[in-house]
Amino acid sequence: MKRDREVTIQELKDLVDKFSAERNWQKHHAPKNLAMNIAIEAAELMEHYVWDRAGEPDKQEVADELADVLFNVLNFASTQRIDLATAFMDKFEKLEKKYPVEKFNVDRDDLDEYRRIKKTYREGKEAA
Amino acid sequence: MKRDREVTIQELKDLVDKFSAERNWQKHHAPKNLAMNIAIEAAELMEHYVWDRAGEPDKQEVADELADVLFNVLNFASTQRIDLATAFMDKFEKLEKKYPVEKFNVDRDDLDEYRRIKKTYREGKEAA
Amino acid sequence: MKRDREVTIQELKDLVDKFSAERNWQKHHAPKNLAMNIAIEAAELMEHYVWDRAGEPDKQEVADELADVLFNVLNFASTQRIDLATAFMDKFEKLEKKYPVEKFNVDRDDLDEYRRIKKTYREGKEAA
Amino acid sequence: MKRDREVTIQELKDLVDKFSAERNWQKHHAPKNLAMNIAIEAAELMEHYVWDRAGEPDKQEVADELADVLFNVLNFASTQRIDLATAFMDKFEKLEKKYPVEKFNVDRDDLDEYRRIKKTYREGKEAA
Repeated sequence: MKRDREVTIQELKDLVDKFSAERNWQKHHAPKNLAMNIAIEAAELMEHYVWDRAGEPDKQEVADELADVLFNVLNFASTQRIDLATAFMDKFEKLEKKYPVEKFNVDRDDLDEYRRIKKTYREGKEAA
Repeated sequence: MKRDREVTIQELKDLVDKFSAERNWQKHHAPKNLAMNIAIEAAELMEHYVWDRAGEPDKQEVADELADVLFNVLNFASTQRIDLATAFMDKFEKLEKKYPVEKFNVDRDDLDEYRRIKKTYREGKEAA
Repeated sequence: MKRDREVTIQELKDLVDKFSAERNWQKHHAPKNLAMNIAIEAAELMEHYVWDRAGEPDKQEVADELADVLFNVLNFASTQRIDLATAFMDKFEKLEKKYPVEKFNVDRDDLDEYRRIKKTYREGKEAA
Repeated sequence: MKRDREVTIQELKDLVDKFSAERNWQKHHAPKNLAMNIAIEAAELMEHYVWDRAGEPDKQEVADELADVLFNVLNFASTQRIDLATAFMDKFEKLEKKYPVEKFNVDRDDLDEYRRIKKTYREGKEAA
């Protein structure tokens, strides 16, 4: 079985597509439904961490929930014809500009700049 | 720039790790926080589909939100030392057993079996 | 048993407080944890609506999930000393200003204004 | 303005209904959409707590996000004709049985029982 060093995004997408095609489930996979399902699976992952009182979550259960999120991300990308590598690199460049290493680095974490970014974010929401 | 056919999961993980290391942000990346952030980004993706009234969402904005989810999934996997390809294949085999092609296929979608699976799911939650 | 016409928000808050106090669970109820739990319960409600294929969800199960969300909203409000009636009315006034009846009413649903509001929202997030 | 001690659930529901009716927005309020929106607003509340690094969130902003969740809970209940007080009391009785004070109280927090409940929950999901 391939591991992260060997497997490409497309190989995983192909498995997801095959799974849907064999069951004729593409008809259920409107982007609205898949977006909801990503959020549902993300909440199931989160559920392992909410109360802090029962010790560390089971590693395999957590990996399982994370795989559920990934499965749905791949399904969304495949059905919506989004190249994830391209989307990731676009986002990555935006994040590098938003949090430049001159302001956020090993020696300093620019909290003023961080708060300014978050304030802009929330004012945008408020106005909207 | 590589596309889904060429890029491995590990190459994307390495970029996420480098991004965190350069900013000394690993200290913020407790699994609880990353699980929360996956759910937050998933909700932002979902927000594009909630009201149905303003037509199709912008393709680039959607790809951006999906990339945010993926970024956080990779970050979670990397910091928790989860091999995503392995977790995905484990999950994939479970899904193939849960939804066998004999019951769910092009000619029939076994709604009774589907409802039974969902009922078990909800009774499990109810009991818990 | 009281119904919505008779019960006050405070009466429900008092029950939530009593439930926590009897079990000595206030120590688990950091706002971070309660916010997570509201999101988790919201996802469980959403799960009843994701696939559209098994007909209408069971009314009682849906009411149960909604009650879980409400329970956690009340718990959050109570532990953080937020008067929900006040918070609701503040929000209500903001919403009335954001979506004025001159622009959004029975005869017209101002899609241009709606898109402008959403665009401002997303640009705020993008900038942030 | 009324506060939690004076306001009934129905009074808040009536405001939500009036808001929708004046704008002719009932057509957007399918339960699927409202369930999604509850989850989206819950994620926005959660966003204030995710990174722990910028100190305490602003109290008014938090109250605002909580009010958004409540607004949507009331809207869901009203459009689906769910009496929230009744749903809450039903749920409350179930929670009292699930976490009896003999096992969960000031002197002891029965972690074994707690883990058993959570294990049943997850096995139910796994089976499903």
